[in-house]
Amino acid sequence: MKSDDERVAIVGVGHSRFGKRLDVSMNELGWEAIRPALQDADIVQKDIDFYSVGNFGYWSEEILPAVTIGEYAGLTCGSLKTEAACASGSASLKIAMDSILSGTARIAMAMGIEKMYNSPNGTIIELIGRAGNYFWEFENFGMTFPGYYALYATKYLDAYNAREEDLCEAAVKAHHYGSLNPYAQFQKETTVEECMKSKYVSRPLKLMDSSPITDGAAAVILARGDIAKKMTDTPIYIESQGTATGTAYIGRRDEYTGLEASRRAADIAFRGAGLSGVGSNFDLFEVHDCFTIAEVMAYEDLGIAKKGEGINLLRGKQTYRDGKYPVNLDGGLKSKGHPIGATGISQAVEITKQLRGEAEKGRQADIKKGRGAAA
Amino acid sequence: MKSDDERVAIVGVGHSRFGKRLDVSMNELGWEAIRPALQDADIVQKDIDFYSVGNFGYWSEEILPAVTIGEYAGLTCGSLKTEAACASGSASLKIAMDSILSGTARIAMAMGIEKMYNSPNGTIIELIGRAGNYFWEFENFGMTFPGYYALYATKYLDAYNAREEDLCEAAVKAHHYGSLNPYAQFQKETTVEECMKSKYVSRPLKLMDSSPITDGAAAVILARGDIAKKMTDTPIYIESQGTATGTAYIGRRDEYTGLEASRRAADIAFRGAGLSGVGSNFDLFEVHDCFTIAEVMAYEDLGIAKKGEGINLLRGKQTYRDGKYPVNLDGGLKSKGHPIGATGISQAVEITKQLRGEAEKGRQADIKKGRGAAA
Repeated sequence: MKSDDERVAIVGVGHSRFGKRLDVSMNELGWEAIRPALQDADIVQKDIDFYSVGNFGYWSEEILPAVTIGEYAGLTCGSLKTEAACASGSASLKIAMDSILSGTARIAMAMGIEKMYNSPNGTIIELIGRAGNYFWEFENFGMTFPGYYALYATKYLDAYNAREEDLCEAAVKAHHYGSLNPYAQFQKETTVEECMKSKYVSRPLKLMDSSPITDGAAAVILARGDIAKKMTDTPIYIESQGTATGTAYIGRRDEYTGLEASRRAADIAFRGAGLSGVGSNFDLFEVHDCFTIAEVMAYEDLGIAKKGEGINLLRGKQTYRDGKYPVNLDGGLKSKGHPIGATGISQAVEITKQLRGEAEKGRQADIKKGRGAAA
Repeated sequence: MKSDDERVAIVGVGHSRFGKRLDVSMNELGWEAIRPALQDADIVQKDIDFYSVGNFGYWSEEILPAVTIGEYAGLTCGSLKTEAACASGSASLKIAMDSILSGTARIAMAMGIEKMYNSPNGTIIELIGRAGNYFWEFENFGMTFPGYYALYATKYLDAYNAREEDLCEAAVKAHHYGSLNPYAQFQKETTVEECMKSKYVSRPLKLMDSSPITDGAAAVILARGDIAKKMTDTPIYIESQGTATGTAYIGRRDEYTGLEASRRAADIAFRGAGLSGVGSNFDLFEVHDCFTIAEVMAYEDLGIAKKGEGINLLRGKQTYRDGKYPVNLDGGLKSKGHPIGATGISQAVEITKQLRGEAEKGRQADIKKGRGAAA
């Protein structure tokens, strides 16, 4: 059993409104997340010993955002930017957590931010494509991320006898919870019919299978366990984190119905928390549903469902709030939005709010185990 | 006293040749540093639990280099990219060190890389300018980094009765040691006369006061102290690291003869190592001489010299190998080159080689204390 000073807890969270945010600068958008996080933790800037900024970058006006956002927010401690493609926010969380566990910081802030609407549309698609194997797959074959996930969807639907309508169920769930989340980019319900009528982006994935382009920021304040306990009655401990890197070449992957790196990272995280897997250990989950198929694969990679059975969870509405495994009760990337560098931090904000019982009406999970997981 | 498993040591180092490296891709350049580091540590890729890549980016063909470099090098553990402007390499070292101290990794790699020659020259100057306050100072006043340091040089020369010739002494020293370093971009001596005849870049700074545009990579393998001892007879312990962030607006700074954030970071690092300052504790130093004036200010910010007396160290050749405080015996940024993301790691490689007694002939410091410092 770890002692309190060997643990890290979230003691404050902040979240900007996600969407098309041409109304604010990068620094202002960051402050929209940092200010409520400071208030929630009941601390001031000088209490923070270190902060990290998750950011993919390249499309916003600030290409070196860590210093400018920190300065705008009144922070003078050490800082850096982290980038790990779509996991940039989660990487920021890891770095801030490590800074406390290593003994270099007592209180740290992990934030993430992205402003994507500043960039012309064609450029965005190219930039996202660079998170794959750019020189071979983008330049030769024009592969972009909808294309990558369309390959997975095609294989999955074929292998497990699923239909496009089944994937649309993930979009319906996402929009349902997004409609209840005041920070979400899309706050309206949708239906399987509407999803099916939406245009193909990359067959079999349609517009309504896809997460949007989003501007947004999120921040969490972390503290060493013993300090956290003095700061709040509801510290949310981060029991463990797992990271893994897979191949960026889709042509080199072994199979197209799941992500091997996700499974390795989840395995590391479960072992770090002394768990053998999902079991009945969690009250809720946050997964990376950049496309509907990604949500289904995440169910299986995390171990919520066996291989090929993720689609059944959707069909049976088992990942709704009142199902067996509540997933993405904030609307997920699909409806809440996917400001890349902010996404991992936004997931941490959501799990914190849920475990505290502070989620909005209609989307608050029933907290029994006091534990949530994000992938 | 910390126990071995609470410490981190460098157990392997690798360094690419610095210079105009249009002969290699980003991934190949990374491998030029990673391969010798693995060999030096006598490990294989799967022994590494985590790696970080320091990279400023924006000018090379790979804008998300952590995954592609790792994949090319055969690494599959968790990874991320760090950016902290010109301290991106040092940030990478911090992250990898924290990953061990936090208990998440036993062996980690910190590397840094930059390919700057891929970018058109005008773009480079603009991109570097973005590390300052871009919107106010670059767009309104055309401020770029030579301009920033020229303001500091003007103030320093005036305040302390120094001459441009004195600054040129730093260039002469840098080129002397660069001429002895096979990895350096410039391997030739220079003179005060030659430096004085070089063109002004931003008065009073001349071409020969300035570090060049450079492509290069460097890597260090870190291990938890108890593991490091089993791996090598010469573990080089990282006793502490300090980080601080100053204002990016030059107009908001208090004074123009030193960098306040450097002083705070150095103070944190000294305290972390249980030292009150430079004293006679170190055999050698590595400082960030992006311009000759930066080297002089670093003497003072680190505490090698009192305020206004840094220039005297240069005049008296006290920062040469046989002086009281040997500084940048590898040629420094000025002569070795400054591939931004690689620079902090290159400094760690250099100090490791020096403390092991493995530096090239003519530039090996006399190691008595067994301790070096980098800023």
